[in-house]
Amino acid sequence: MTPPIVPFVGKSGSGKTTFLEKLIPALVARGLRIGLVKHDVHGFELDQPGKDTWRLRRAGAVRVAISSPQQFALLGQVDEELPLVELAARYLSDVDLVLAEGYKRSSLPKVEVCRAERSGEMLCTPNELLAVVSDVHLDLPCPQFGMDDVQGVADLLAGLLERNRATPAPAVTLQVDGHKVPLKPFIQEMLAGAVSGMLVGLKDAQGKEIELRIRGG
Amino acid sequence: MTPPIVPFVGKSGSGKTTFLEKLIPALVARGLRIGLVKHDVHGFELDQPGKDTWRLRRAGAVRVAISSPQQFALLGQVDEELPLVELAARYLSDVDLVLAEGYKRSSLPKVEVCRAERSGEMLCTPNELLAVVSDVHLDLPCPQFGMDDVQGVADLLAGLLERNRATPAPAVTLQVDGHKVPLKPFIQEMLAGAVSGMLVGLKDAQGKEIELRIRGG
Repeated sequence: MTPPIVPFVGKSGSGKTTFLEKLIPALVARGLRIGLVKHDVHGFELDQPGKDTWRLRRAGAVRVAISSPQQFALLGQVDEELPLVELAARYLSDVDLVLAEGYKRSSLPKVEVCRAERSGEMLCTPNELLAVVSDVHLDLPCPQFGMDDVQGVADLLAGLLERNRATPAPAVTLQVDGHKVPLKPFIQEMLAGAVSGMLVGLKDAQGKEIELRIRGG
Repeated sequence: MTPPIVPFVGKSGSGKTTFLEKLIPALVARGLRIGLVKHDVHGFELDQPGKDTWRLRRAGAVRVAISSPQQFALLGQVDEELPLVELAARYLSDVDLVLAEGYKRSSLPKVEVCRAERSGEMLCTPNELLAVVSDVHLDLPCPQFGMDDVQGVADLLAGLLERNRATPAPAVTLQVDGHKVPLKPFIQEMLAGAVSGMLVGLKDAQGKEIELRIRGG
C-alpha cells in the first residue's frame, strides 16, 4: 500500500529539518517505521568521483544500487522528476509513514513550519494545511503547535495513522492455474500495496474489488 | 517483471569494474536500460555527516530518499542483507538488464573475470558459469572472451535478452468491481512485473495463470 505522506514545508531557514530531526524519534518511539523524502530542486551528489559506483553510473547505468548487510542505496537517473506519490508508491511502500521535506506545490495536506523571525508570510493557503508549527499564534483554522511541540505533532500524525489502520486491511487472494495459494499477511500487504500503488492514477479503483489476471508471467 | 540479472564475479583486482565500465556503454548503444548492483560486504557511506539527509537518518528514518529533476537517491537501513533477486524485483524493475558486481555465492549463472596475473584459480565451478572473461585460455565448456572483448560479451547478453523477449509478454487483465479496465501495455508490464517479482519465491507460479483479488485496497 502507498504509505500516508505528509509534506513539511516552510521558507528556507524556517527550521523544517531541525523540527523533523526531533519529530522522527518521537514517531519511532510510537513503534512507527518512518520514511523521509527530501525535495532537492538544485541537484545533489552523493557519489564521489572515481568510486566504482560513480564510474559505472558515468558509463551509462541508469540505476545503480549498492547493497551491504546493514544498508542499501539506490541512485537513479530520471528524465523528469518523480512525482512524490509515485516515488513513495514505488520505493517507500515498506514504511508506515512518509514525511516529506519540501514539495510545497504538492496537493497533499501539509504541515507548514513558520518562524516569525524568518518570515511573517505563509507559503500555504489555509485550506492546504494539515497543521502549522510556529513560534507565534496565527489566525488559522488548523491545529497549531509550538516549535518545540514535537509530541503534539507526533500525536496528530499517529492519530491519523490510527484512523487509517482502522480501515480493514485489504483481503488478498491468489490463484495459480485455478488453485488457491495461501499467502502470509506480509505478502498479502506487499501485493495489495504494489498493485494499488500502481493504480494510484486510477481513482475509480480505490476501495473497490480489484481482480488482476496474469497469464504467462 | 524482475529483469534478468547477471553477476560479474572475480577475485579483487581482477578487473571487474574496469570491464563493466566498458561493457555498459556497449549495452546502452544496443538500446538497453542498464541497472547495476554492487555488492558491498564491508559497509559503505554515501551520506555526509552534518547534511540534512544524514541528520534525518540518524534521527531514525529507515528510508531516506532525495529527489531532484535529474536524479533520485534512496538510502535504506536493513536488518539483514537484501537478497539480490529481491533487490532487483523491488527496486530495479524498470531496467532491461541488471549487472551485478560481486555476489559470487548467488545461484544465478555468472560471468567470471579472471586475470592470470591476479590468480590462476577460478572462483566458480564450471556449471555456475555463463561465460568467462580472461587474458588466458581456460579449459572450460562455456563461452570465453578476452579482457577487451566487450562487444563479444555485449552480444552474448543482448542475445539472452532477445530470447527472453521472444517469450510473449504476459497478458494482464484488470477488473474493478467486475468491470474491465483498459490498461496501457506499460501499466500491464508494471503490474505483471511487480506481482511476479513478489512471487519469485513461489516457483510454482512461474509461467502460469495468476489471479489476484484485492478487496478494499
